[in-house]
Amino acid sequence: PTALRSDSGKVQELKVYEINERDRGSPAVLRLSGKPATSLGDLVPFTNKVYTGDLKKRAGITAGICVVIKNEPEKNGIRFEATYSFYFGDYGHISVQGPYLTYEDTYLAVTGGSGVFEGVYGQVKLQQLVYPFKLFYTFYLKGTPDLPAELLGEAVPPSPEVEPTAAAKACEPGSTLPNFSD
Amino acid sequence: PTALRSDSGKVQELKVYEINERDRGSPAVLRLSGKPATSLGDLVPFTNKVYTGDLKKRAGITAGICVVIKNEPEKNGIRFEATYSFYFGDYGHISVQGPYLTYEDTYLAVTGGSGVFEGVYGQVKLQQLVYPFKLFYTFYLKGTPDLPAELLGEAVPPSPEVEPTAAAKACEPGSTLPNFSD
Amino acid sequence: PTALRSDSGKVQELKVYEINERDRGSPAVLRLSGKPATSLGDLVPFTNKVYTGDLKKRAGITAGICVVIKNEPEKNGIRFEATYSFYFGDYGHISVQGPYLTYEDTYLAVTGGSGVFEGVYGQVKLQQLVYPFKLFYTFYLKGTPDLPAELLGEAVPPSPEVEPTAAAKACEPGSTLPNFSD
Repeated sequence: PTALRSDSGKVQELKVYEINERDRGSPAVLRLSGKPATSLGDLVPFTNKVYTGDLKKRAGITAGICVVIKNEPEKNGIRFEATYSFYFGDYGHISVQGPYLTYEDTYLAVTGGSGVFEGVYGQVKLQQLVYPFKLFYTFYLKGTPDLPAELLGEAVPPSPEVEPTAAAKACEPGSTLPNFSD
Repeated sequence: PTALRSDSGKVQELKVYEINERDRGSPAVLRLSGKPATSLGDLVPFTNKVYTGDLKKRAGITAGICVVIKNEPEKNGIRFEATYSFYFGDYGHISVQGPYLTYEDTYLAVTGGSGVFEGVYGQVKLQQLVYPFKLFYTFYLKGTPDLPAELLGEAVPPSPEVEPTAAAKACEPGSTLPNFSD
Repeated sequence: PTALRSDSGKVQELKVYEINERDRGSPAVLRLSGKPATSLGDLVPFTNKVYTGDLKKRAGITAGICVVIKNEPEKNGIRFEATYSFYFGDYGHISVQGPYLTYEDTYLAVTGGSGVFEGVYGQVKLQQLVYPFKLFYTFYLKGTPDLPAELLGEAVPPSPEVEPTAAAKACEPGSTLPNFSD
């Protein structure tokens, strides 16, 4: 008695900002390669803040690790392999896996999620705005019912200058997702 | 010529216990942060034993790594980001990714699997019973045919006192899954 | 208004070789356990070259990390838990998670992908040919439209002696995937 996977059928775009406000002791650069320059063998656990795409609400945090794969001096950057999650308070989380190149946009795999993101799949575009402090993500999500409207506010167009609202930065009531992750 | 994903359509609940019997040299707490207290930068590879939810059979092991994300002294606990797999002998494995908070239950993403778990997706609830030695998991699984009955025996209700049967602990014939992982 | 997940319905087999040509400084064996023998606590970030199964084209690289789980001297090998991705240039990437045992074939979970592999799921068989320098993988993939023909050339049967064509090794024009990952 097999049935078929229920699915919204459409791709839902979810946009968020990841910002390092330098108050979480992140990243932790572990120079384990023993080499003078960043090299395979170095590891970078990290956790930054996540804001909704409209920059009006603190959503939560990112949490995970970047594995240094290759130093690419000719590109003035580094190839990392990243495994991490995005936390959205009571709404749950989205996990991802894939490339983070400090010198160009990349797409990571969405590997799953919890809460409203249970069963999610698809990919996510990573755009770096200010290395390594400000990034913009566009998730292309399938596999879930319609996401909550407060996640889907119109995104502020990404640029190096964007900032969350003061209320969101201060995590004031009404300017966070419910029980936002921290 | 696209078709549709065949799927059981229903959620299958799979319950297991993860127990650290202190005989595997696990966890390996790597204090790489260089800080006196547990902090971002510390890593914790681990491997524990897995028993079926009825505690009558040794299923296999867990294997993976926890990345310390945040020390939360006000909650008397730690936030980890976890990436690991559950092994079930010849039946295959389930991989997961997500939060492990030592002070409350969490849900992790099921990212995939092998063997009877090929194509699996969904989420898993993690309940800690005795930190960090005894945990109970309820997988909410989709995407696979009906799971083998011996995985689905009625679970012993989780409590700090539960123990596997002596035969399961001793991995006696008939008290393990086929070719249980070790 | 829920619909159903579109899917090719069939399993697509994708075969690739992963070869360590000892020119990428890989693997980086991090002996963090502090023990004389390889043990839980040791970590192995790695990146190798990937060739198409017909060995006629350089596809890209692998990138990720192996966590040492258990030294198994009686099997003359090691159990690793692996989290890594396969890169295919402009075609995108496939992420995997699961077991790597140096003494027998294993199956890992396909956790997702990007580009032509967006939405992919399934499992992958890992066959070691020459430890730790040459491996053959057979992906059993679902969830994507038909893959590009140049990925699906007839695979050279796996053996310890196989080598990519000289043109593929040299990454000559016509002997790589478009914008192959490196």
